[in-house]
Amino acid sequence: MKTKLSIVKIGGNIINDDQELSRFLKLFSKIKGNKILVHGGGKKATEIGEKLGVISKMVNGRRITNTESLDVAIMVYGGLLNKKIVAELQALGCNAIGMSGADGNTITAKKRPVGDIDFGLVGDVEKVNSSSISVFLNAGLTPTFCALTHNGKGQLLNTNADTIAAELAIAMSSEFETTLYYCFEKKGVLRSIDDENSVLQHIDSKKYKSLLADGIIADGMLPKMHNCFHALQQNVKQVCIGNSDMLQEENSNFTTLTL
Amino acid sequence: MKTKLSIVKIGGNIINDDQELSRFLKLFSKIKGNKILVHGGGKKATEIGEKLGVISKMVNGRRITNTESLDVAIMVYGGLLNKKIVAELQALGCNAIGMSGADGNTITAKKRPVGDIDFGLVGDVEKVNSSSISVFLNAGLTPTFCALTHNGKGQLLNTNADTIAAELAIAMSSEFETTLYYCFEKKGVLRSIDDENSVLQHIDSKKYKSLLADGIIADGMLPKMHNCFHALQQNVKQVCIGNSDMLQEENSNFTTLTL
Repeated sequence: MKTKLSIVKIGGNIINDDQELSRFLKLFSKIKGNKILVHGGGKKATEIGEKLGVISKMVNGRRITNTESLDVAIMVYGGLLNKKIVAELQALGCNAIGMSGADGNTITAKKRPVGDIDFGLVGDVEKVNSSSISVFLNAGLTPTFCALTHNGKGQLLNTNADTIAAELAIAMSSEFETTLYYCFEKKGVLRSIDDENSVLQHIDSKKYKSLLADGIIADGMLPKMHNCFHALQQNVKQVCIGNSDMLQEENSNFTTLTL
Repeated sequence: MKTKLSIVKIGGNIINDDQELSRFLKLFSKIKGNKILVHGGGKKATEIGEKLGVISKMVNGRRITNTESLDVAIMVYGGLLNKKIVAELQALGCNAIGMSGADGNTITAKKRPVGDIDFGLVGDVEKVNSSSISVFLNAGLTPTFCALTHNGKGQLLNTNADTIAAELAIAMSSEFETTLYYCFEKKGVLRSIDDENSVLQHIDSKKYKSLLADGIIADGMLPKMHNCFHALQQNVKQVCIGNSDMLQEENSNFTTLTL
């Protein structure tokens, strides 16, 4: 039987609020067994970028990463946020180790090919080095990833945190029974967007298709759910979507996805 | 017989110059066997700090670390410099892993007690977790430390990079035959400060005392040498002082210190 592994991804809604982040980290630190944390950015990067006079370039509503904005990402995601999360987890008795994909050569990526848009220094995950990550897990460490990868040729690349979490979960599933948690601001996938309590507690492939057909899964939820089912098809055991409370053992009011 | 370990510390003179840093990293990556890199800050932190409107407070010529300047250190040392060094080492085939003392709980420190001066968020090293660092070395990784530690209670602390290197060397010497390299701008400890070629190639305890008595070791060299002999007295095999070139195998024109 494979050992269990929990991979938890948090985004801006938690990172932007010190109190909410502390609350989350307390819950995260209590997860038993092997665990990995993946964190995105948040408004701090925008704030620091503005102060430094770095202007986020947008094309067709998509953010472009140039050298200056990558430097801000490295400073804020890889430095400020990552190290503070690690120090706080250490205080909670969780032996965290902060990393980008360059550290221990854990995640390599390719610069996204230039199509209609040149996204700049953005990377699409190429390979997760699961054996390197296993060394950390087996030593009792909790790898804590920021949303940066590298191309193996000395270039760091900005990479979507949701994707990093999914790719980590897929790669680690060869050795571990992996559950992937996406923590966001809502209690789960909602049947009705206006009703916070209309959480769909379980979605399998069949239900997913019908929800798509009925237009219940739409907008921002579309790529997220696509990512989730992609991970499930690649041997990830289950994916859970909800807010920080889903990490509380007694709580079951969140969305669980299985094939 | 103990396995060999090289611990190399670099400072601002290398970090401030991209070309010099690349040259150093090439030489460093060629060191055979177990190795650890420790890097200090450099003018980038001052530059970013100024742009962010963070004013470095000085008291009696000593820098005070407040919350804002610590954040800059975390961003620049822990983020920008550390991750770029790691990515560049990876490209050179050296499996580097960037860390602060909080990562893997590798280095704990105590906030420096308030005496005549309150240095603020500055830490004096309390404990190096050598077994945690050994896990990384035994996995073929090259720990790459920035000059940050933590107090185990969630607080990161600014810590002198020379001291971190010395404390790492002392702690690792129980398991490894450790050589500590201090890379700086000169070829070594000079007999005459004005003569770049007056390198003292070997200094032992006896010679050290006579050099002190003759006033040849003075000013900034005093605490550095004190640190070195402290490390040697704590079982570090040897300490080498020179510029990047001392890492070239055929070069012997640098200073070697032994007891």
